[in-house]
Amino acid sequence: MQARPTYIINGDLSQTITPLDRGLVYGDGVFRTMQTRGGMPLNWPLHYQKLVADCAAIGLVCPSAELLMHDFLQLLLEPDLNSNQLAVAKVIITRGEGERGYKTPAVTCPNRILIVSSMPFYAEVNYATGVDLHLCELRLSVQEKLAGIKHLNRLENVMARMEWRDDGVFDGLLLDQQDNVIECTMANVFARFGNQLLTPDLSRCGVSGITRERIVSLAAVLNLSVQVCQLPLKRFMQADEIILCNSLFGAFQVRTIKSSRWSQQALAKNFRDLLAHD
Amino acid sequence: MQARPTYIINGDLSQTITPLDRGLVYGDGVFRTMQTRGGMPLNWPLHYQKLVADCAAIGLVCPSAELLMHDFLQLLLEPDLNSNQLAVAKVIITRGEGERGYKTPAVTCPNRILIVSSMPFYAEVNYATGVDLHLCELRLSVQEKLAGIKHLNRLENVMARMEWRDDGVFDGLLLDQQDNVIECTMANVFARFGNQLLTPDLSRCGVSGITRERIVSLAAVLNLSVQVCQLPLKRFMQADEIILCNSLFGAFQVRTIKSSRWSQQALAKNFRDLLAHD
Repeated sequence: MQARPTYIINGDLSQTITPLDRGLVYGDGVFRTMQTRGGMPLNWPLHYQKLVADCAAIGLVCPSAELLMHDFLQLLLEPDLNSNQLAVAKVIITRGEGERGYKTPAVTCPNRILIVSSMPFYAEVNYATGVDLHLCELRLSVQEKLAGIKHLNRLENVMARMEWRDDGVFDGLLLDQQDNVIECTMANVFARFGNQLLTPDLSRCGVSGITRERIVSLAAVLNLSVQVCQLPLKRFMQADEIILCNSLFGAFQVRTIKSSRWSQQALAKNFRDLLAHD
Repeated sequence: MQARPTYIINGDLSQTITPLDRGLVYGDGVFRTMQTRGGMPLNWPLHYQKLVADCAAIGLVCPSAELLMHDFLQLLLEPDLNSNQLAVAKVIITRGEGERGYKTPAVTCPNRILIVSSMPFYAEVNYATGVDLHLCELRLSVQEKLAGIKHLNRLENVMARMEWRDDGVFDGLLLDQQDNVIECTMANVFARFGNQLLTPDLSRCGVSGITRERIVSLAAVLNLSVQVCQLPLKRFMQADEIILCNSLFGAFQVRTIKSSRWSQQALAKNFRDLLAHD
């Protein structure tokens, strides 16, 4: 049982969300999930840059980095949070309250929410030999106007996550309707073929994470060239090595997808080390 | 300026929503919008039936009709709401709070929210000669597992609604990615060709409303046969008459879409009358 997460809304620990918030009624907002150490977010510049870009993509002006940083500092004053431990922070920006109907308010007052939770537990075996994936039956829909954005419309991920209850399954692999690999429900994916590292094109669906970006930038250190491309499942399954990545665990190797199995290799570990020291 | 809507959460006027509600973080929930008179919902059995079906489609057990009716009665005790006037009620059911992550809670405690707002104002000209539509550039995405459901992932509608600011435009016509007409941002559509009434198939995208269902049932009274089918824009634009429908205004004729214009006819008025006395 995890400790109940702590949150702060618009810099005020006593503020609440009303059911008139467009984040609730329409999923009209964006978010980021990141690690914190000692209450401060790791890789903040990249997260903030992506938050600003995602806000802009749905026509929102992101609150300033100073305001958001102030929220982190406020939460640090709470008992139990002022430690050097790792934790998870989620920053949510919604379009705030509006009148009834889809029309966006003439003057928008975004709501900003910071939620801090304890780090999830990752089994030692995930670091050592990798993770097992479920191949999701649900196929991601194509919406170019929202692709890549980490917005609050995540019902597809919820529905996909309902496909398995086995705790041994780490995540689910999501395809588009043409059998191309896109991502996992909570991670981006890379497939290595020799010294080529391929990662799915996310211009039609999927969420583009900052750890994916960082891996793209770091690949040259491992003498890998990176290609963002369409990646049919059939080709993906022939990869020499597959890894998942996100801001919480860094990188994990994929050990099995259905009956296919990959033996233990070094790529995920190498990227974890690079990400930790970047 | 509309009066601020009143709401009640889980039957408690003082309860609030926390940022841990899955309705906010994932859009993990469903809703209905309906008219009320004297505080009581109109066409409640159909709305409740659809709410139950939509909940089931995302793996939720809908709260009982008795509980929801109790919420309406509670709000009636509020000053200003106890009148015989028409108002708008929105019922939202979310999957409630959960731990971090997409995995649904082992034990789900849905949150139910009832929001009552004043009726929107519809211009006399809309009743008399019809409404003008914008043809949306945004194309609806295809997700068969969510099609037809009135869920809280409505960012496509928000983005589509951002395409126009002209108050003379009543709604936007939404197509899928193959140029088939699906719906408007806040209404379903019908196209009449002679004595045939066509309405788009919503099994791949779109929201199926109860007024659409009611019109399908009532069409025989007007000697119309109804067909649910794929409806390419090109064909749609050749209709003798086009109407929009939803639970708030009943039915309105479409007067213009881009440079195409339809002269005033009787279909929308006939359905409004039938819907009012059904």
